[in-house]
Amino acid sequence: MSDRPAPSRRSDFSVRYPISTRWDDEDVYGHVNNVVYYSYFDTAVNGWLMQSSGTDIRRLPAVGLVAETGCVFHRELGFPDPVEVGIAVERLGERSIVYRLAVFQGRSDEAAADGRFVHVYVDRDSREVVDVPAQIRVTLAALQT
Amino acid sequence: MSDRPAPSRRSDFSVRYPISTRWDDEDVYGHVNNVVYYSYFDTAVNGWLMQSSGTDIRRLPAVGLVAETGCVFHRELGFPDPVEVGIAVERLGERSIVYRLAVFQGRSDEAAADGRFVHVYVDRDSREVVDVPAQIRVTLAALQT
Amino acid sequence: MSDRPAPSRRSDFSVRYPISTRWDDEDVYGHVNNVVYYSYFDTAVNGWLMQSSGTDIRRLPAVGLVAETGCVFHRELGFPDPVEVGIAVERLGERSIVYRLAVFQGRSDEAAADGRFVHVYVDRDSREVVDVPAQIRVTLAALQT
Amino acid sequence: MSDRPAPSRRSDFSVRYPISTRWDDEDVYGHVNNVVYYSYFDTAVNGWLMQSSGTDIRRLPAVGLVAETGCVFHRELGFPDPVEVGIAVERLGERSIVYRLAVFQGRSDEAAADGRFVHVYVDRDSREVVDVPAQIRVTLAALQT
Repeated sequence: MSDRPAPSRRSDFSVRYPISTRWDDEDVYGHVNNVVYYSYFDTAVNGWLMQSSGTDIRRLPAVGLVAETGCVFHRELGFPDPVEVGIAVERLGERSIVYRLAVFQGRSDEAAADGRFVHVYVDRDSREVVDVPAQIRVTLAALQT
Repeated sequence: MSDRPAPSRRSDFSVRYPISTRWDDEDVYGHVNNVVYYSYFDTAVNGWLMQSSGTDIRRLPAVGLVAETGCVFHRELGFPDPVEVGIAVERLGERSIVYRLAVFQGRSDEAAADGRFVHVYVDRDSREVVDVPAQIRVTLAALQT
Repeated sequence: MSDRPAPSRRSDFSVRYPISTRWDDEDVYGHVNNVVYYSYFDTAVNGWLMQSSGTDIRRLPAVGLVAETGCVFHRELGFPDPVEVGIAVERLGERSIVYRLAVFQGRSDEAAADGRFVHVYVDRDSREVVDVPAQIRVTLAALQT
Repeated sequence: MSDRPAPSRRSDFSVRYPISTRWDDEDVYGHVNNVVYYSYFDTAVNGWLMQSSGTDIRRLPAVGLVAETGCVFHRELGFPDPVEVGIAVERLGERSIVYRLAVFQGRSDEAAADGRFVHVYVDRDSREVVDVPAQIRVTLAALQT
């Protein structure tokens, strides 16, 4: 594990999406279960897109399906303090978007976890891969400054 | 279903606990799944107790286990807007507490759902029923005005 | 709590739906979280309807939305042993169905929890209340013997 | 996405752990939400360890905390058919275990998703990194043939 990257910092992210923790986020070990971090990621990316675009992205002809995710866990998180998910675009492709994400809690400036999240856009009905919709592309411009 | 009680209103609750919704709260029908309302209830009661008491109630010698819950669903909820859970004490017994809960979202003053939630206090190790801890009792006084 | 009904028994249910437990079903108290019982209920009713009818009930013109649920918790459940959900129809109405449910685990013949679950049928698009579809009605006949 | 690895096959895994799907595994897109795959992974690794070792691994002095996970999604999964999680050990280190996992459903021999899951062993109380317990090591021998 010696080659694990250092945790990212709050200042690495111009956009941070707040999420409240829930009682059942914690598992038997008394910390937020590893699975829940991915729920934070999914919520942050889609929630931010919906709020920033003012669009219900789930009703667009093309929707983003998750093709790949990953997470490196640095520190434990707990209930009931809220978390913040930092959102950045690592690569905006023609048909896919690679996000860089991180979860923060409390006063610490260091991420409790760093994640990667890939959306591939598909036709809502046929599920065939298509271009990232213009509306999403415009919204993402705010993340790439 | 004609004997269903009318939805409660925000003003029926002096305490309201805010919770952010999550992408995966919604099920295939495009609304918050009925199961998730109970996660809101659990989170609101325990989160409010922890924040109001300044105590990690999970480490007290006596802990509240859920003995009974119920919910009447009036309206659908959706992602990504936050919800608010109204919390009131219906009955503060010697060894148990009956809460009245309701979930609100958006501008509506009417509850989307009304719930009932019963905590029975047990010894953390032996799981035998015991008295509601003084610390919890003091904290609850704020709810009964 | 003296007026709590006695736990039901396996033999009270002619249909029992098996569900595997999951690591994250357990919360910080080292038992299956109360919220998860409702996921078992939802899964058992819908899963059993889909398997018995051979129909993807989510694509029917009328779908069952949950109008009311409740649960009395008798005993704790744990991971990794599977559970069984007993399913019975308490009342088959014109536009709604009231189910009686119970969760069993291990060798015990007594239910760990007894539940109630009400489906109201609505038009899939308009969400207006409609009659229980004939296909569902036929399938349920198996439960009422 | 052209460099995505080919899906693994059932025969790549000598151990496969069955898990029932749940109604609320599916999200608004009518398929199992990406987050849930990680719940399948967590459940399969821990459930298999518990069943194979006959030990409640959560009560051992050293417990496995998740340090890193990842998943590549190939195909959609749906309710109500069960899934099977293939489990293999990629690297058994002194203080950590890297698992290779895959999710299968239905008649297809191809994985719907391929995952990676890293457990680091820590002292249950101090959370300091320690050696993989002998009991776990012995149990894992069955996976490495």
